[in-house]
Amino acid sequence: MQFKNLSESPHFATLAKTKPVDLHEVLDHQRIAGSTICVGGGLAYNWAAMPIDATHLELFQKLADDMELVEKYQALLAGETMNTGEKRLVLHHLTRGRVLGEDTTVFADGEEKGAFYQEQSARIAKFAKDVRFGQLVGSTGKPFSTVVQIGIGGSDLGPRALYLALKGWAAGAKIDHMEARFISNVDPDDADDVFEGLDFETTLFILVTKSGTTQETLTNYELVRKAMHAAEIEGFDPSRHMVAVTSKTSPLANSSDFLEAFYIDDYIGGRYSSTSAVGAVVLSLAFGPSAFKRFLDGAHQADLAALEPQVTKNAAMLDALIGVYLRNVLGMPFTAILPYSQALSRFPAHLQQLDMESNGKQVNRDGKPIGYATGPIIFGEPGTNGQHSFYQLLHQGTDIVPLQFIGFKNSQRGKDIETEGSTSQTKLLANLIAQIVAFALGKEHESPNKRFPGNRCSSVIFGEMLTPEALGALLAHYENKVMFQGFAWNINSFDQEGVQLGKVLAGKVLAGAKDDEQLTAYMKLLS
Amino acid sequence: MQFKNLSESPHFATLAKTKPVDLHEVLDHQRIAGSTICVGGGLAYNWAAMPIDATHLELFQKLADDMELVEKYQALLAGETMNTGEKRLVLHHLTRGRVLGEDTTVFADGEEKGAFYQEQSARIAKFAKDVRFGQLVGSTGKPFSTVVQIGIGGSDLGPRALYLALKGWAAGAKIDHMEARFISNVDPDDADDVFEGLDFETTLFILVTKSGTTQETLTNYELVRKAMHAAEIEGFDPSRHMVAVTSKTSPLANSSDFLEAFYIDDYIGGRYSSTSAVGAVVLSLAFGPSAFKRFLDGAHQADLAALEPQVTKNAAMLDALIGVYLRNVLGMPFTAILPYSQALSRFPAHLQQLDMESNGKQVNRDGKPIGYATGPIIFGEPGTNGQHSFYQLLHQGTDIVPLQFIGFKNSQRGKDIETEGSTSQTKLLANLIAQIVAFALGKEHESPNKRFPGNRCSSVIFGEMLTPEALGALLAHYENKVMFQGFAWNINSFDQEGVQLGKVLAGKVLAGAKDDEQLTAYMKLLS
Repeated sequence: MQFKNLSESPHFATLAKTKPVDLHEVLDHQRIAGSTICVGGGLAYNWAAMPIDATHLELFQKLADDMELVEKYQALLAGETMNTGEKRLVLHHLTRGRVLGEDTTVFADGEEKGAFYQEQSARIAKFAKDVRFGQLVGSTGKPFSTVVQIGIGGSDLGPRALYLALKGWAAGAKIDHMEARFISNVDPDDADDVFEGLDFETTLFILVTKSGTTQETLTNYELVRKAMHAAEIEGFDPSRHMVAVTSKTSPLANSSDFLEAFYIDDYIGGRYSSTSAVGAVVLSLAFGPSAFKRFLDGAHQADLAALEPQVTKNAAMLDALIGVYLRNVLGMPFTAILPYSQALSRFPAHLQQLDMESNGKQVNRDGKPIGYATGPIIFGEPGTNGQHSFYQLLHQGTDIVPLQFIGFKNSQRGKDIETEGSTSQTKLLANLIAQIVAFALGKEHESPNKRFPGNRCSSVIFGEMLTPEALGALLAHYENKVMFQGFAWNINSFDQEGVQLGKVLAGKVLAGAKDDEQLTAYMKLLS
Repeated sequence: MQFKNLSESPHFATLAKTKPVDLHEVLDHQRIAGSTICVGGGLAYNWAAMPIDATHLELFQKLADDMELVEKYQALLAGETMNTGEKRLVLHHLTRGRVLGEDTTVFADGEEKGAFYQEQSARIAKFAKDVRFGQLVGSTGKPFSTVVQIGIGGSDLGPRALYLALKGWAAGAKIDHMEARFISNVDPDDADDVFEGLDFETTLFILVTKSGTTQETLTNYELVRKAMHAAEIEGFDPSRHMVAVTSKTSPLANSSDFLEAFYIDDYIGGRYSSTSAVGAVVLSLAFGPSAFKRFLDGAHQADLAALEPQVTKNAAMLDALIGVYLRNVLGMPFTAILPYSQALSRFPAHLQQLDMESNGKQVNRDGKPIGYATGPIIFGEPGTNGQHSFYQLLHQGTDIVPLQFIGFKNSQRGKDIETEGSTSQTKLLANLIAQIVAFALGKEHESPNKRFPGNRCSSVIFGEMLTPEALGALLAHYENKVMFQGFAWNINSFDQEGVQLGKVLAGKVLAGAKDDEQLTAYMKLLS
């Protein structure tokens, strides 16, 4: 297996000379019907409205083979040190609870890592059952009804987005659901807002920090303890209302301040940790361990699908390569994520972290500067809301923004109404379909202000309903897409050195920053 | 007054030849201290970390004078038809409740518009007082405790962001606050989620649609009525739990289905409507009419400040012109909004609509194609959360994303804790300061992976606390910035023809779309 920059592949040079296809010319019913790939979890990916044809697909295949994308994925699964900057293995696929192939028994830190993640998974499932069935109760004898996760970044965005994504599913499926809240920002107003109406006697907190040293999270932990103390509840014991998710080597690992500690390790990056204990505890408490197991199964199915060497059968890899074409050949520096599902309201924020933190890099995996663009800007809001907001620019602005639609045939809760001959869910889907075609084909008009140029490309991921399986597959699809793009760009998608300088300078400011002219000047201004 | 394209101004041609300054060379304490402009509402704008110097400022002034930016603002205030596409006046500044100058008495539709907005404002204040003091109660005799706004786009994003922004302020100021919730998406799961735990007897709904025909909003209105009916509350009268915000010519204007109707008109675009009845009803109910008045006062102060002809004294105009320089000379197609305040969690989503719907245009105000880029992509999340998410790309990605920081010296709620020698609020501000400097100056490192190139430009808007005045000024600053950019680009920032095609095609889909090959093919696939 060989690592080389994208620009070193002769097939990229060929690809760079190809023109995008004109969607007005090619988008017919055959193409639409014939451009669907299975994602896993009951989802499918359709690329009919992307500006590519058989020529591009052939070059994508040559590029994928030449860059050994699937081989690199296999090497990652087999425990190669793919996080070169931090010299770490990359093992989030192992947290799905299923083995992906024969070569995926991975040893590190003196243990078999698959077994380690499974052990944590089993402990979490038992713990969640005990809490949900009232066998484990709060320190004043009351059952827990609310769970609050304290964490930031990957310990917040993914779990929060997934919780919101499944809340309506649980309501529709009549599954008992514990309310979950999240405290993340070091802004003290964040925690105080979460405390509103909170009953500490029936609340279980989850403190999530891999290193055990994240400043925001530890500060919010102290705010929680202060608020618990201020509540002056007789017989209340804070340590029986708090569990930790951390690494075994963290200062929090063996503390008597926690009811339980569940473990992760250095091979699970924060933004890839939703299927590990970081997501497992809060989601298993909220919806039950069996729902979480179904979520993992969906993720596993997408992981399996991503092993397929043919680009036309591998949704994550094709999505990745189309993205490379849009970014590096057509020069489009952004991608919008547009879920037609209110339950996915915060999913774009999770993908924003996943993608931008993974692939927003300026050096290759060996630390050498590269001469081409890497990860794009990711943003998005649910449709139809976005239609009444930023879609104006998407339709008629001076830049073309590639779009990724997501949609489901059925709503989660099923509480619908028919008005003017159609249900709300039917209207939602009608809007999704209309937008794909409107962006792709546009419309001529004698007044240029009412003219839609079209050729605004999109893909769509769709399924029957946003279930735990579908959500797991959706999450893993994007994780694998980001991974394949990282391989194509020959960058390390698993470190985040870009967040360090800010931390160092913030520490300087807190220490007075006497020797730093600029910090001092801004301190005078702002504080 | 003359309207011409940006490319027709000789000063733009000169500006296009200027190089950005290197922040490493110029960012010293004098520059930082000397680059602050009053915004209004106690806020200030500092542009020290933007890549410009006296040469640019001089050209900005010439450009502003040549393009007659302030004159155009005055013409807008005086009631000229600035929304050329729809042939409408643009009067949102009049909704602040203060007159901006001698020439701002505007007549339209046979009435003095300032008086019309004030009349609605007075009616809303009285109504909100009656509800808040329990003089107006629900149909079963219980006082209202919750308000639910049904609206989408401008009837949702602005009011929702502003409600979240002031919730903590109200808690800190010990002001009685009515809970507000929002239903927007046509996805039926959105409404059902809002219904969770809702007591219809104590809930007042606000139906917001200017035209009275917005499909999502009317559908959700029916869902609300259905849920009210299903609750089977004895003696319950839906019409006494529902008010309308609409235009006088709308089908909802004189309906007995509503307790009250408050009016807006065609001269207030949805995205500019937060200071009109669209925001006034929900915010006055939530926080009281006097808090809403303070919010309007802050907006008015920013409107006044935007009349200043000197660019170095007009924050909105300078912010706009720096944006034009970044977009049209340096080729940067995006801007990130980074509020260091959890209360502003949804403010970037509001600005995303405000900016992208206003300036995402491809033709000038006369409907002629233009040869330069217009509105950028706007996205953002609160800090410090974003630091643990997409900041990796902002620091080390291959594109430079201009940044707009927002921060306050004090938290809203004041419930803070000192850990390791500093409060959470101090840590929050330290991070903000650190980020500005980290982005601007970067840091050399022997390992390229740990190198920060710097010259990643930013500005910051800051104040003592996020109060109603500060929030009003912040909102109006961005409205005026967007307006000035629209004038500079010679586009109409007040229509949104780009949203029409999707509506038409969605209607086709709902009608079966039998004659449309692409719609039919996607219907087969997705529904």
